[in-house]
Amino acid sequence: MKLLLSILLISQFTFAQTANNVIKDSSFIRSVYDEALIRGKAYENLRELCKNIGHRLSGSAEAAMAIKWSEAKMLSYGFDKVYLQPIKVPHWERGNTESAWYQSKSGIPQKLHILALGGSIATDGLIHKEVIEFKSFEALKTASRNVVEGKIVFINQEMDASEIQTFKAYGGCYPIRGEGAIEASKLGAIAVIIRSLAIPEDNFPHTGSMKYDSKTAKIPAAAISTSDAQKLSRAIEEGPVELYIELDCRVFPNADSYNVIAEITGEKSNEIITFGGHLDSWDTGEGAHDDGAGVIHCLEALRILKTLNYKPKHTLRLVFFMNEENGNMGGKTYAQWTKEKGEIQYAALESDRGGFTPRGFGVDGSTEQVNHLKSFESLFSTYDLNQWEKGGGGVDIGPLKDYYPGIPLYGFIPDSQRYFDFHHAPSDVFENVNKRELELGAAAIGSFIYLVDSRPIK
Amino acid sequence: MKLLLSILLISQFTFAQTANNVIKDSSFIRSVYDEALIRGKAYENLRELCKNIGHRLSGSAEAAMAIKWSEAKMLSYGFDKVYLQPIKVPHWERGNTESAWYQSKSGIPQKLHILALGGSIATDGLIHKEVIEFKSFEALKTASRNVVEGKIVFINQEMDASEIQTFKAYGGCYPIRGEGAIEASKLGAIAVIIRSLAIPEDNFPHTGSMKYDSKTAKIPAAAISTSDAQKLSRAIEEGPVELYIELDCRVFPNADSYNVIAEITGEKSNEIITFGGHLDSWDTGEGAHDDGAGVIHCLEALRILKTLNYKPKHTLRLVFFMNEENGNMGGKTYAQWTKEKGEIQYAALESDRGGFTPRGFGVDGSTEQVNHLKSFESLFSTYDLNQWEKGGGGVDIGPLKDYYPGIPLYGFIPDSQRYFDFHHAPSDVFENVNKRELELGAAAIGSFIYLVDSRPIK
Repeated sequence: MKLLLSILLISQFTFAQTANNVIKDSSFIRSVYDEALIRGKAYENLRELCKNIGHRLSGSAEAAMAIKWSEAKMLSYGFDKVYLQPIKVPHWERGNTESAWYQSKSGIPQKLHILALGGSIATDGLIHKEVIEFKSFEALKTASRNVVEGKIVFINQEMDASEIQTFKAYGGCYPIRGEGAIEASKLGAIAVIIRSLAIPEDNFPHTGSMKYDSKTAKIPAAAISTSDAQKLSRAIEEGPVELYIELDCRVFPNADSYNVIAEITGEKSNEIITFGGHLDSWDTGEGAHDDGAGVIHCLEALRILKTLNYKPKHTLRLVFFMNEENGNMGGKTYAQWTKEKGEIQYAALESDRGGFTPRGFGVDGSTEQVNHLKSFESLFSTYDLNQWEKGGGGVDIGPLKDYYPGIPLYGFIPDSQRYFDFHHAPSDVFENVNKRELELGAAAIGSFIYLVDSRPIK
Repeated sequence: MKLLLSILLISQFTFAQTANNVIKDSSFIRSVYDEALIRGKAYENLRELCKNIGHRLSGSAEAAMAIKWSEAKMLSYGFDKVYLQPIKVPHWERGNTESAWYQSKSGIPQKLHILALGGSIATDGLIHKEVIEFKSFEALKTASRNVVEGKIVFINQEMDASEIQTFKAYGGCYPIRGEGAIEASKLGAIAVIIRSLAIPEDNFPHTGSMKYDSKTAKIPAAAISTSDAQKLSRAIEEGPVELYIELDCRVFPNADSYNVIAEITGEKSNEIITFGGHLDSWDTGEGAHDDGAGVIHCLEALRILKTLNYKPKHTLRLVFFMNEENGNMGGKTYAQWTKEKGEIQYAALESDRGGFTPRGFGVDGSTEQVNHLKSFESLFSTYDLNQWEKGGGGVDIGPLKDYYPGIPLYGFIPDSQRYFDFHHAPSDVFENVNKRELELGAAAIGSFIYLVDSRPIK
């Protein structure tokens, strides 16, 4: 009887404690949202990053300026530590000339909206050859050498608009950009152009990373807008088309660069929660969604936690990673460095899917970690976050898994429907980020970091 | 034993049947989404409505043009019936002159971005008086006559940015626009201006309906942009401010107008599922989200069901309602007409919350109807629709409840975070509607109408 009473008392106590925790957490999360929505700095910070600096390709002057800006901004918020972590990054530039047109039966040249793919070699002046179209990457891979050799290959595969998860549709086309030059070169093509990896039909070309291998000749590679891809395809239907193209890309020696880091020291100072996005961007537009929004989300999240005087259990470490887009030297260097320092990486989160309305969070982790994530859901129901799922992480925090196999890697999930309208394109500018959506993202991440820090997984 | 076997067989049969239905429904919904996303007409139709016609205030030439356009478009899709339902609508126009500025201590006049509220009287030339600011509607209501009399009242209450549900924040300010003139006039004000009901701070004024009552004098009423509201408030802090204002609004006799209706006749031809949005809009911007998106959603939904050769159990009736914004004569006339015809209204749905990413559906109905709604949720999980809740309907379909008390009134719920950036403002233009988000809305509604029609509530 006494034992039973004890059990009852304990379970009542536990229940009451749990209920108190829920009330405390709800109330804290409400404060985070209020700070973000009423006194938020996210939008004006993103404006500064996009408008006063602009795009920020690794090794560029703008990337260096963005590092200084980030450090100064972090210092202004009075975090416990702010420092730069040196890294080496590739330095590729597209140069001054980037032009292409085609000449069809009618004889009148038609200019194309084109962007060299990141890492492409130059054409060494204006080149021109017949262009041969493949409606899919598979069709190119199975083509015979004699129809391709000496020509310019045009891969005109559409992103699957019927796929609701736009990141999946992107994944389905990703190899075209990455490996198109290798596959075309294998068959003797002299250059390759691809239909931009984008869903809408418009005039914006979308760049992105590509690679060469050691076995095949390097050939120039570029993306044309989806609208131009349609036009070029129609022209080819009517007869042979000659494509003119000049790319002036250059590769410079690897450059010195930095991850920019800020911390609030936790009770367990050696146990780290790493969270951030990437400060670098492609050299077109302003890197507003990719990934200006992500770094600003995370900066704002830490600013809010500091403003609310939150005392974390673990050290909260905000990292603005450099060089996600073309090398991931920031993520790789960071993971190795923290391991070598003997730090414990307790958890990591990345925001690199744009500044849209928050939908939830994912985790690349164990069943236990997925269940722990799902235990947060009810706290976010009034904030309309209802996607809590397996899968997540991000390119920058990915290398942590190599050194800390059990670490949960969280990914912030905003609405993805507009992301590939802007991704790596001249249209990825500040004006296409909505203030309120950005603020809601920062609030969701600030609240989430608080929960990860304060609610033990076991 | 025989009985038990029968029960087992029946339950297995029922289970198998249910499983088959789920497969059939999933597959049909997938076809609806494919048609919307791959071969969709929604975006080009919205472009025509917004760019070839523009805004469409009841009684205006543009509203008449939009009726003709809608009828022709519906006829082109070969629905079973297309017809116009005559209604009478109010006809108010803002006229040619709409100007305001204030003059503060510095002496330099500062122009305001202003829109008369719909239904306001004119100022009869340029008027000017001292302006008195109230930070909330409550503060005005409790003010004494001697501080207000003879002045221009400025109600500068902000929409609550911390409220996640933007429609709730709007609801909290709605009476300011509707009843601001009455309350100010009660205390002897000569005119009233309000801070626009909008969350972002920008230069767009937002109009909308207002009313007078029979007991108080009518005074002119207008909205200024949120950014101007901030500026004016700061000027008032520094000393008395004179406000100059001229509005040239006119009221014309009630005009002939129409609801535009299309049908696919159902097996039970007298049992109707009504669905639609409103064709009229405020006379600023292009009524793209409010409610161009809604009518186009529903037109596209019916087009898709027709294209897929769907044979409905109930008559599917698409209604483009006229005059939702300032009178709701379309909705009221329709409800009375269908009742008088002896029709059974089985269910109704409205889309009037903009063309953003779909989040779910609500129902204004009984617990049984809410549960029935929630039984749809699993079919939409792959489409990321996870808000299935009590509450819904819309202004146009609301009057049906007066004649059919048990009818479920469904409301389409898109993401609401950007809606009040554009609502009733010059910025509510085609360019601010995203193609893919619009298409996803049409697909969600087409799929939903299919389920309401084919899945009996009992």
